[in-house]
Amino acid sequence: MRDLSKDHGLLSINTATVRKQWRLDTIIDECARRGIRAISPWRDQVAEIGLEAVARRLRDHDMALSGYCRGGFFPAADAAGLRAALEDNRRAVDEARTLDAPCLVLVVGSLPGALQGAPAYTGMARARAEVRDGIAATLEYARAVGMPLAIEPLHPMQAAERACVNTLEQALDLCDELDPGRTGMLGVAVDVYHVWWDPKLHAQIRRAGRDRLLAYHVCDWLAPTKDLLNDRGMMGDGVIELRAIRREMESAGYAGYCEVEIFSDAWWARAGGEVLDTCIQRHSSVV
Amino acid sequence: MRDLSKDHGLLSINTATVRKQWRLDTIIDECARRGIRAISPWRDQVAEIGLEAVARRLRDHDMALSGYCRGGFFPAADAAGLRAALEDNRRAVDEARTLDAPCLVLVVGSLPGALQGAPAYTGMARARAEVRDGIAATLEYARAVGMPLAIEPLHPMQAAERACVNTLEQALDLCDELDPGRTGMLGVAVDVYHVWWDPKLHAQIRRAGRDRLLAYHVCDWLAPTKDLLNDRGMMGDGVIELRAIRREMESAGYAGYCEVEIFSDAWWARAGGEVLDTCIQRHSSVV
Repeated sequence: MRDLSKDHGLLSINTATVRKQWRLDTIIDECARRGIRAISPWRDQVAEIGLEAVARRLRDHDMALSGYCRGGFFPAADAAGLRAALEDNRRAVDEARTLDAPCLVLVVGSLPGALQGAPAYTGMARARAEVRDGIAATLEYARAVGMPLAIEPLHPMQAAERACVNTLEQALDLCDELDPGRTGMLGVAVDVYHVWWDPKLHAQIRRAGRDRLLAYHVCDWLAPTKDLLNDRGMMGDGVIELRAIRREMESAGYAGYCEVEIFSDAWWARAGGEVLDTCIQRHSSVV
Repeated sequence: MRDLSKDHGLLSINTATVRKQWRLDTIIDECARRGIRAISPWRDQVAEIGLEAVARRLRDHDMALSGYCRGGFFPAADAAGLRAALEDNRRAVDEARTLDAPCLVLVVGSLPGALQGAPAYTGMARARAEVRDGIAATLEYARAVGMPLAIEPLHPMQAAERACVNTLEQALDLCDELDPGRTGMLGVAVDVYHVWWDPKLHAQIRRAGRDRLLAYHVCDWLAPTKDLLNDRGMMGDGVIELRAIRREMESAGYAGYCEVEIFSDAWWARAGGEVLDTCIQRHSSVV
């Protein structure tokens, strides 16, 4: 198991963690001056600054990406919606390529319209079929430009609105179906927040293996948790057995960054510098 | 598939659904005068009226139970706590027997103290082992008095505090381990709220079969859901494919009640009679 206590060379910051405090250009600068070597930015944050400006700023700081957030949201109410989703995913692949991301993270989507409180239909089987088809089509394009896709299973409490892929097993079944040759172009993003509870987690990490483990996200599960979306905990403040999960990831061959992704009204209310400093400290002590 | 549109002879009311409006004696009376033939009461509600008084009132109304809520909460910080949990579960079995319940529902518990915001430990493997041992010990007693135990897998969002059994597959694995002979004394309570999202739901219902399907609970999943505990929806108001799940249950041999269990601040704020009338109407139209 890798020793994280000496430095924070393996730490990455998902930029949603401090999105309420800073724009992306400031996030990059603030990470760089703390010696943080990687980030994972969101498309809307990139768009606000401009893709080329972000690419340049990353190069200036010699900063890497641990992933690009995000593609996905494939299901739609009609054929036009499905086509629009595929086009949007191709743009996301292109952006990830421009930023030299190691993978494009897919939050696959679920019942269309559910996020707005008005689901266009309620069939999870239909949503899951549309997700499979959407990934298949996007994978074809992604292969051509050499951008791996990382399916992120989301917590079952977000199954209606955000992702109908809710366990690592289900994500890996999709990988096996769409990329039986294990080409490295389709895999998973393992976020402890979404999968920590799963009794099959360790077995499925082993099943995934190096070829499929494209990203690793950390935070913590607070007990009690007060909100279904924005009450994630800082590593060490909750009940997730972070060391045990990382050990399993690394035994299976994962050699990438530990990316901190915290959606939290409480942490968004603190100073950005304090949040980053705390991430650095917890990365070395409890991740 | 059974026709529920003609009458509500297969409807049961989990008494938590109107617990903020009425005491248990009133709930029984109000159900009886609407022709509801079964309920599933909670231990604290029973204790408030007195076990014998409740038994008498049920007999007077010729009212059945669809289950008794609840045993479980096996994990504990120390040996004394584990022993106390087993004693409490034996009392729950006895009460279920007195009330002639078809099964005692088990909410198995998880990290001890997490419900109070102070987990005594964070090892899910330990909690799961304590749950297995607790069910095994309770099953021995339950067999002697002839009271089936129904393990209720809870939604993964309640994995830290309330139940470390979070999928139907996991519950059935426990059943196979502890009751390999499928004696009918150990099975599952399938609550759509907890399991609707699971891509393996239908396959696991088929796996369970008649011997293991001891209870069926209905409500709905609202999109969006605002609270991790008390924002369940009335059947028909959410995204759960109720008909498809009931069809699978009945194909697998389930022949019991459809028990309505709704924890909801919104429904608790309405008049009890309106809630029961709505349950009757939705039972016949969408369950």
